[in-house]
Amino acid sequence: MRDDLAFAVWSRERQQRIEAVLAQLLPSEAAPSPRLAAAMRYAVLGGGKRVRPLLAYAAGEFASADPAAVDSRAAAVEFIHAYSLIHDDLPCMDDDALRRGKPTVHVAFDVATALLAGDALQSLAFEALNGAFPPGAHACRVLAQAAGHAGMAGGQQLDLDATGAALDLEALMRLHALKTGALIRAAVRLGAACGRPLADAEAHALDAFADAAGLAFQVVDDVLDVEGSAATLGKTAGKDAAQDKATFVTLLGLASAKRHAHALHENARAALAPLGGAARRLSEIADWIVLRTH
Amino acid sequence: MRDDLAFAVWSRERQQRIEAVLAQLLPSEAAPSPRLAAAMRYAVLGGGKRVRPLLAYAAGEFASADPAAVDSRAAAVEFIHAYSLIHDDLPCMDDDALRRGKPTVHVAFDVATALLAGDALQSLAFEALNGAFPPGAHACRVLAQAAGHAGMAGGQQLDLDATGAALDLEALMRLHALKTGALIRAAVRLGAACGRPLADAEAHALDAFADAAGLAFQVVDDVLDVEGSAATLGKTAGKDAAQDKATFVTLLGLASAKRHAHALHENARAALAPLGGAARRLSEIADWIVLRTH
Repeated sequence: MRDDLAFAVWSRERQQRIEAVLAQLLPSEAAPSPRLAAAMRYAVLGGGKRVRPLLAYAAGEFASADPAAVDSRAAAVEFIHAYSLIHDDLPCMDDDALRRGKPTVHVAFDVATALLAGDALQSLAFEALNGAFPPGAHACRVLAQAAGHAGMAGGQQLDLDATGAALDLEALMRLHALKTGALIRAAVRLGAACGRPLADAEAHALDAFADAAGLAFQVVDDVLDVEGSAATLGKTAGKDAAQDKATFVTLLGLASAKRHAHALHENARAALAPLGGAARRLSEIADWIVLRTH
Repeated sequence: MRDDLAFAVWSRERQQRIEAVLAQLLPSEAAPSPRLAAAMRYAVLGGGKRVRPLLAYAAGEFASADPAAVDSRAAAVEFIHAYSLIHDDLPCMDDDALRRGKPTVHVAFDVATALLAGDALQSLAFEALNGAFPPGAHACRVLAQAAGHAGMAGGQQLDLDATGAALDLEALMRLHALKTGALIRAAVRLGAACGRPLADAEAHALDAFADAAGLAFQVVDDVLDVEGSAATLGKTAGKDAAQDKATFVTLLGLASAKRHAHALHENARAALAPLGGAARRLSEIADWIVLRTH
């Protein structure tokens, strides 16, 4: 099979797999509040590229882990991601009405329910971790740090603090290393931790890969925000400019931002080079992240 | 020393202890976003009765645990509680301007920062768990379930769903068993799990105690909302009535609500009776909860 075809089959299979895992872990209509359960399911299911779960599965494969061992951790990371999107879209944050081609949760339900659905999804992430094999306090710490004040939430606050302010490239990269990078790094670490013990050099290589791929992902996001349409993106296009936010495009210009994405892509691939063929899926995910159109 | 004096000394000592633990675990000004760190510290420190940490320490004492082993778990529960207060006070929820005698977080900072501070405090709770001894996946699950859709967040959604609707006593008790009861039960369980292994009968007795004490706490809260003033409560008084919320007072009337609190107090004490003198601090906390004036 051609390589790109093999990756398409692999990623489709893993996307279907994580969809089933997520659906299984989410509360059903029999939950104490059916409305809360419905909002949580609406936010998580039936959309999304599942980049973070794919990274967890691919890192698991690198460490010879069974995909079944990765399931709960991949789901935990996706629950954190989904909660962050709900809260990010709220009126007090980006005030966005469209996400994954559907009305955002606070539009489809209401603001208070969206707030609680995000809160409950964060709890569910840590609950899911516990069904993971191997279970463990280590995974709880890795995910909590990636999500918290020194990770994703800290990055979102930096983003907030910077609205309307002039950021330089270094500050913007630091912001995104937290806002999106921390959780991507956690996805790779949590997946890899399901397999054989890694040598330090392997663990460092995976971290370096995740950091470069995470930043590349964000730069491409900024490019697509300018070049894409709501129809292809599934979310409001052009909103960075409308909100007067510093992005890689506003700082570097469109052409230079694309070159920056290309360079980060090369860094991600270079980080994997010493790891050999076992890291192939990770490399293919990086290709897919950079070459995507939405 | 007189018993009530001994309890006052014990609880003051534990309150000072948890204050130091919380301050230590919270991010400092050196955090990625000093503003987020400041909002988190503002929300957690310098106020609050620390009922849940006291319950964790008291349950730990029952199981012969060293207080040092309980510290991180007691803090984790308090972080969850503090996050829930921030989000509960937001304009889209109760829209409250006063908490613990100070402006609420979204008033002192802004709504988006308050949202993120709550989010980051939930993450910090799970990060704190990991510093606990014994560490463990078990604690992560207990706390996540207590906080999530089948616990505190689920109860808050039920509260939301019920605004303006007629609830009967059974439904109101179910709501509060989730909204406040689940986390109180978790505080007792997490504290007790730091000590010797418990017999099933002991674990059940502690759960029964926590359930009764948790409900008593809520009934007394409802009574104080009617009888108290903002000056003694440190939060807006009379807000339940203003928001047309079903409370134990609106359902039962003031006198009957007080009798209900008294009965729950008796249930809580009765649950502890078979456990003997080692459960004395738990019993004293129940007394304090019911007899408090704020």
